[in-house]
Amino acid sequence: MSEPIQFYFDFSSPYGYLGSHLIEAVAARHGRPLAWKPFMLGAVFQRTGGQPLVSLPLKGDYAKRDMVRGAAFHGVPFSFPPKFPAKSVTACRGFYWLEAHDPDKAVPFAKAVYRAFFFEKRDIDQAAVLAEIAASLAIDAEAMGAGLRDETVKAKLFAVNAEALEAGVFGSPFFIVEGEPFWGVDRLDQLDRWLATGGW
Amino acid sequence: MSEPIQFYFDFSSPYGYLGSHLIEAVAARHGRPLAWKPFMLGAVFQRTGGQPLVSLPLKGDYAKRDMVRGAAFHGVPFSFPPKFPAKSVTACRGFYWLEAHDPDKAVPFAKAVYRAFFFEKRDIDQAAVLAEIAASLAIDAEAMGAGLRDETVKAKLFAVNAEALEAGVFGSPFFIVEGEPFWGVDRLDQLDRWLATGGW
Repeated sequence: MSEPIQFYFDFSSPYGYLGSHLIEAVAARHGRPLAWKPFMLGAVFQRTGGQPLVSLPLKGDYAKRDMVRGAAFHGVPFSFPPKFPAKSVTACRGFYWLEAHDPDKAVPFAKAVYRAFFFEKRDIDQAAVLAEIAASLAIDAEAMGAGLRDETVKAKLFAVNAEALEAGVFGSPFFIVEGEPFWGVDRLDQLDRWLATGGW
Repeated sequence: MSEPIQFYFDFSSPYGYLGSHLIEAVAARHGRPLAWKPFMLGAVFQRTGGQPLVSLPLKGDYAKRDMVRGAAFHGVPFSFPPKFPAKSVTACRGFYWLEAHDPDKAVPFAKAVYRAFFFEKRDIDQAAVLAEIAASLAIDAEAMGAGLRDETVKAKLFAVNAEALEAGVFGSPFFIVEGEPFWGVDRLDQLDRWLATGGW
């Protein structure tokens, strides 16, 4: 019963950000480890025909309102990014470089990137911003900067994107528990009960 | 504070069906009337470019699983219809004919249509099935059958579809409280708090 909850998220996804604030309490309540898996939702959209939420007629306007309202509802600090969406590829590579070279820092880095983008109005497309975030966490920013161009790191991100598609992931956040998929912050209540009961 | 909750739904929408089971308790808790507003989601999709959920790659398979799981989670009897989606136009016209001619029967008719489609595996495209449902509720099925071709009834449904678009409705179920929009069964928790607090 200790298989990790798979937590797929895109660094440019507002609901993924909310999920990052809420999933740890659910996992802890059931003694489950959590596998953080940043991926590139845009790469998945190329295969599924999905589109960025905020670009859709009517739904886009609703979504922007819903993100702000939902963050406040859940008590999560949130400020809609001035430049949105961000390209999430560099932050993803930073995460997977850390996972290989300074693993205890990977999750703190992910949280700091999310906070920078969705609360501090910083531009996470910029390598300099990611370097500042790294430095603030006592990560070797220079080594990480070089690591962003590492072919192994690029291949790892490519593999996670492929794995996400294979697992049926089409949005962010997306949680999988022993093969059972839960899409969205909206499904954390069902995920919580699923972990408690083993399903229904 | 007694402005009704606007409840837009499509008779062919599984999540609309779940919403119809859950919204009454929320409205009652806050002493709010509820305005049932069946509309044609397909007509809205023609304007917004929306697509039926179950037809989308990956998302469609997930949605079918999520509908069954969500119904059980909420304790709502559910059986995926053998022929899906249904055309909802006739059921909508029946509802609006009742609203004009036998108003106390309109909501019971809506509930019976939903139950017929999402639990009893009946084909709500068929006028004969709607007539049986009407008869079971002591509605004059013959008068309602004639009313389905009534120009006033057709115009009323057309007007509700237009009103829905104007109000930003792009999915089902969709709830509006004094201009504040809530899309989906997933937002009933926020709607509940909104009614309690007047917003945040």
